[in-house]
Amino acid sequence: MYPRKLTRSVISNPDYPVVETPKGKLRGLWEEGVFLFRGVQYATAKRFHLPQEVPAWEGTKEAIIYGPVCVEMHTPIAHDQYNVPHYHYIQDEECHYLNIWTKHIEKGAKKPVMVWIHGGGFSTGSSIELYAYDGHELCDFGDVVVVSLNHRLNCIGYLDLSAVDEKEYKYTGNLGQADLVAALRWIRDNIEAFGGDPDNVTIMGQSGGGGKVNALLQTPSAAGLFHKAVIQSGVFEGGKDLLPEESREIGKKVVEALNLKDIREIETIPYYLLARAAQKVGGEMAGGRIRFAPVKDDDFFFGSCELNPCIEGTKNVPVLIGSVLGEFDQNFNQVYAPGSKNSWSEDQVWSLLRQVYGDQAEAVVAAQQKAYPGAPIVDSLFINRGGRVAARDWCRRREKEGCAPAYNWLFTLESPFNGGTIAWHNVEEAYMFHNACYLEASYIPGVSERLQDIMTGAWVQFARTGDPNFVGMPLWHPATEENGACMIFDRVVREECHHDDALMELLPQKAIMSKNARHPLSTFGGGPRQSL
Amino acid sequence: MYPRKLTRSVISNPDYPVVETPKGKLRGLWEEGVFLFRGVQYATAKRFHLPQEVPAWEGTKEAIIYGPVCVEMHTPIAHDQYNVPHYHYIQDEECHYLNIWTKHIEKGAKKPVMVWIHGGGFSTGSSIELYAYDGHELCDFGDVVVVSLNHRLNCIGYLDLSAVDEKEYKYTGNLGQADLVAALRWIRDNIEAFGGDPDNVTIMGQSGGGGKVNALLQTPSAAGLFHKAVIQSGVFEGGKDLLPEESREIGKKVVEALNLKDIREIETIPYYLLARAAQKVGGEMAGGRIRFAPVKDDDFFFGSCELNPCIEGTKNVPVLIGSVLGEFDQNFNQVYAPGSKNSWSEDQVWSLLRQVYGDQAEAVVAAQQKAYPGAPIVDSLFINRGGRVAARDWCRRREKEGCAPAYNWLFTLESPFNGGTIAWHNVEEAYMFHNACYLEASYIPGVSERLQDIMTGAWVQFARTGDPNFVGMPLWHPATEENGACMIFDRVVREECHHDDALMELLPQKAIMSKNARHPLSTFGGGPRQSL
Repeated sequence: MYPRKLTRSVISNPDYPVVETPKGKLRGLWEEGVFLFRGVQYATAKRFHLPQEVPAWEGTKEAIIYGPVCVEMHTPIAHDQYNVPHYHYIQDEECHYLNIWTKHIEKGAKKPVMVWIHGGGFSTGSSIELYAYDGHELCDFGDVVVVSLNHRLNCIGYLDLSAVDEKEYKYTGNLGQADLVAALRWIRDNIEAFGGDPDNVTIMGQSGGGGKVNALLQTPSAAGLFHKAVIQSGVFEGGKDLLPEESREIGKKVVEALNLKDIREIETIPYYLLARAAQKVGGEMAGGRIRFAPVKDDDFFFGSCELNPCIEGTKNVPVLIGSVLGEFDQNFNQVYAPGSKNSWSEDQVWSLLRQVYGDQAEAVVAAQQKAYPGAPIVDSLFINRGGRVAARDWCRRREKEGCAPAYNWLFTLESPFNGGTIAWHNVEEAYMFHNACYLEASYIPGVSERLQDIMTGAWVQFARTGDPNFVGMPLWHPATEENGACMIFDRVVREECHHDDALMELLPQKAIMSKNARHPLSTFGGGPRQSL
Repeated sequence: MYPRKLTRSVISNPDYPVVETPKGKLRGLWEEGVFLFRGVQYATAKRFHLPQEVPAWEGTKEAIIYGPVCVEMHTPIAHDQYNVPHYHYIQDEECHYLNIWTKHIEKGAKKPVMVWIHGGGFSTGSSIELYAYDGHELCDFGDVVVVSLNHRLNCIGYLDLSAVDEKEYKYTGNLGQADLVAALRWIRDNIEAFGGDPDNVTIMGQSGGGGKVNALLQTPSAAGLFHKAVIQSGVFEGGKDLLPEESREIGKKVVEALNLKDIREIETIPYYLLARAAQKVGGEMAGGRIRFAPVKDDDFFFGSCELNPCIEGTKNVPVLIGSVLGEFDQNFNQVYAPGSKNSWSEDQVWSLLRQVYGDQAEAVVAAQQKAYPGAPIVDSLFINRGGRVAARDWCRRREKEGCAPAYNWLFTLESPFNGGTIAWHNVEEAYMFHNACYLEASYIPGVSERLQDIMTGAWVQFARTGDPNFVGMPLWHPATEENGACMIFDRVVREECHHDDALMELLPQKAIMSKNARHPLSTFGGGPRQSL
């Protein structure tokens, strides 16, 4: 991420590399083959107002360090700091910044543009939060222009105040989405100067980022600004759109909790007061926190395509959509038993299987062995249903609506952490970013290098043409209800058809995120936090 | 820093590597040759109270992710985010954590222990703030045990409340120092289990970290807990000890600003209220902020050795002390003129030299050329006096007091950033940590590798024996008033004698930190911040 462990030289001179954008000049960096522009402002915005264009400037602005990331209401140190290393950064409400990696700074280059939209629900995260997001390798490997961006989140990005002031705060429930559209507009107007093709833009995101991509597919004002889409663990069974009546009610409650004399004060009070009020209201709600998400409306979000008609403007967008084997159900935390899952005795495993699946245990194991022949049966404890079924069904839904092809995939590679850990939510990012060797917990010498060549290759090929098929991997069919096609990313990469239908049928449906219990002997006792 | 860009495998199993400490078991990681233990708690502490020993525990605690770092009153994105890449991390008052890198987890190994105390004045920073602080390479290269630690800072580490309650809050002005002593005690009692020699501990620090080392040399309760000391850009001309009457007055003012009903509330109010009060009081003081520093007292700080007698308990401690050529006066920000200093015309350079040095310009350049023959004369604009003179005189002072030898050094390597940048405050850290290839702004292929071998070699040799001399570098004499010996670290490493006395005489004395003006065209307009 920042900085890379270098084995190469960098050029960072006042006059090179400099790119002239329509608004003014930007000075970046050059690292043997890749130009970097960090912290490029794509919009300005006052709190609770729509993003505006950045005014033109004289002279040359520096773009050599990252811009601030969006403020977060609460930043815990999660156990996944090990499995999914985070780069925490300075938080500020003024967070409309993007980063660019490119091999060309000539207008004629017109390389495919791959835009990364970070995860963290709609509440946390940033363009640089995970080391996996570093765009250098993807840019270099694929000769593509990589863009990653920050935008407004949580109570400054998705707090719907329209019930308090219908006119002034009409869009407050979707400001985070409005920021994304503003960034895509900036890319349309500026990316050519960075060697990118504004007519070939792929948006991609994982988890919340996948949710944002899913929402942008249903955003009329975003139609035409992107041409391909990638959703990684971004849809889950039981997902529901946030309705205006719900979001307006939440906004009203937060305003009440603030107890302001004049509602306009909400635009200038310290962020922590706002966040505390939101936390308080969240604490009183089911689930213990406010659900921040795009609000169904007529301008920014027509409602997700799983539950609503697909909008016309994006029906022609091909999609890569997939999930990972364990998602939130992996064995990070030794919740079932101490030690490595692969060291448990057969008796112990069966006892746990019966505990979890009751008299369905044998059937589950049989279906698991059919889906993944020879895999350890203990893995049946950790296979996630919600993400897998939702991604599969998403393809079927788009097919029914007559949309462009959707390619379905599933990442199943076991990582060496804890003597064997099932693929966890977001482990695949390092593979499609060609950054597998950044991740201590999942790096397998020889295996990781090969798999990232294939995955990054497929992602790049998809960004170039809308079809991920390239010679380096097995043939991959668009998923249909009939073929049930799914590309499995593992030590052996292979296309399967309807391989886990029976298994999915047997696994119980759960809440979107199962509780990822804390390791009881974590060195951090009191729940360390960056609280407000 | 975290994570390393790997080309190696990691073992991270529930049962390996595990170290049994006197209080309980800790599970770490193994990365081909180096064991890592992150986030090991060395003390507990209630706010405004002395640190206490960690209670013993059953089972095995995880030590695979970093512990939280101390809360900061304000975290700006500095321009130096590029030149000195920062790893920002979760902040919490509960921050008594250290990290260990070692090649051995057997008691008999008894390797030298090198303890890194971070900089950032006494207000900011952490054990993992800079990428340069990653201990893996130093451990691997030198076969030493590297420890880095967090401790309390700013208004929770150095706010003297003794005027408010003489008994209860007696030590509040030096809690940050008390934490350091607690960490050194933990090392004495535990490090053997990690392959370290408790009888051979070297403390080292840069900037504020050097100041902390300087203070520990004058701390009776720390005497015997360390055996060698390294001070890097940690002393500056004009430095003054903080006196109890000053610190007590500051504490009183902050308490007044808080307007508490009961003084005990100060132990539980949210940190941001405390920090805001301290900021308010600071704003009303000369300099615009509170000076947080150890307070001269009878227990934790006898007053710095530059101004006070050296305490007996540490007179036998040999010291490596030095500074860098530019410190705060480098040419990051193009404050004198746009473009690279090395591209300015001779006329322009002389015009700037006259602007800065008036009719002394010719004399300064002559002295600079005598000190650094053939160096660009433009560099005379950026040579720092305060750090260089203070380090040199510090050696003389210790000599007069009959202390163990002090070895003086100066780092002068020009970095490629901006087409040539004078060595800035803390650029040398990457070289004594053998991490030069982490720093985009200073990495020079071939040169950086060689120089880091020499500097890390000297630091390790010093940690082993108290004498930095090893075959890989020129002979290095302890500095005396008579010999004026100083090791110059540059493309050519060389010992010089009295080389810059005349130059230092000519340079004007300045405030400790000159203003490091912001680049006028930084992309960050409004001063992004992580504010409270």
